[in-house]
Amino acid sequence: MNCLDHIKWDAAGLVPVIAQEHGTGDVLMFAWMNREALQLTMDKGEAVYWSRSRNKLWHKGEESGHIQKVHEMRLDCDNDVILLRITQQGHEPESPSIACHTGRHSCFYQRFEAGSWVAVEPVLKDPEKIYK
Amino acid sequence: MNCLDHIKWDAAGLVPVIAQEHGTGDVLMFAWMNREALQLTMDKGEAVYWSRSRNKLWHKGEESGHIQKVHEMRLDCDNDVILLRITQQGHEPESPSIACHTGRHSCFYQRFEAGSWVAVEPVLKDPEKIYK
Repeated sequence: MNCLDHIKWDAAGLVPVIAQEHGTGDVLMFAWMNREALQLTMDKGEAVYWSRSRNKLWHKGEESGHIQKVHEMRLDCDNDVILLRITQQGHEPESPSIACHTGRHSCFYQRFEAGSWVAVEPVLKDPEKIYK
Repeated sequence: MNCLDHIKWDAAGLVPVIAQEHGTGDVLMFAWMNREALQLTMDKGEAVYWSRSRNKLWHKGEESGHIQKVHEMRLDCDNDVILLRITQQGHEPESPSIACHTGRHSCFYQRFEAGSWVAVEPVLKDPEKIYK
């Protein structure tokens, strides 16, 4: 069976994807892929997603330089969720990596505290300087 | 704003949820919540999901004993994905935890290798003994 046919694509032809940083284990972001995005990810060794908001392929880092090098791809027990182990590129050496379009390390920067969602991670780079 | 209203629920009233093991950083599973499931998760301090296949609330571990104690809840930059940091319970002491219904540590046990998805993690407990 073709490795793309092994995946249970949803009604929109997409599969959810979790990007986990290889070095730290941090979950950096969550996105979607269609067949073409997954094939391109396999071919390039870099994460290519399907942007549902822009309705087009999204080679992560194509504008920001924040490319995600893929170390390993995992598939879950139901064949309908992908886990990427990646190295997040494009940040200053010695600084934490930046995956989020807000300039933060991880997209998951809001923590539930005493009944509210609170931003608890610093902005490492001004988004206006990321997307010139 | 109510902490549930802060979340961008999808057209089906659901939000995707990633469960990450607190001690190891391992991504154990992926599931969905509706408003009631998230409220119950907050109230109990244990993961309660919405089962799309069974179309009902699913208090993870209710049958298997594999309860997930919630340490921390995170929300992403688009307010439409939740990350749970959990301790997976119900396994033998000193053994790796079991989150997957196949009796494996993590649901993400299929690794992409040379063009195929290959099961690379051992079954730690016979599923027939988990679901008696």
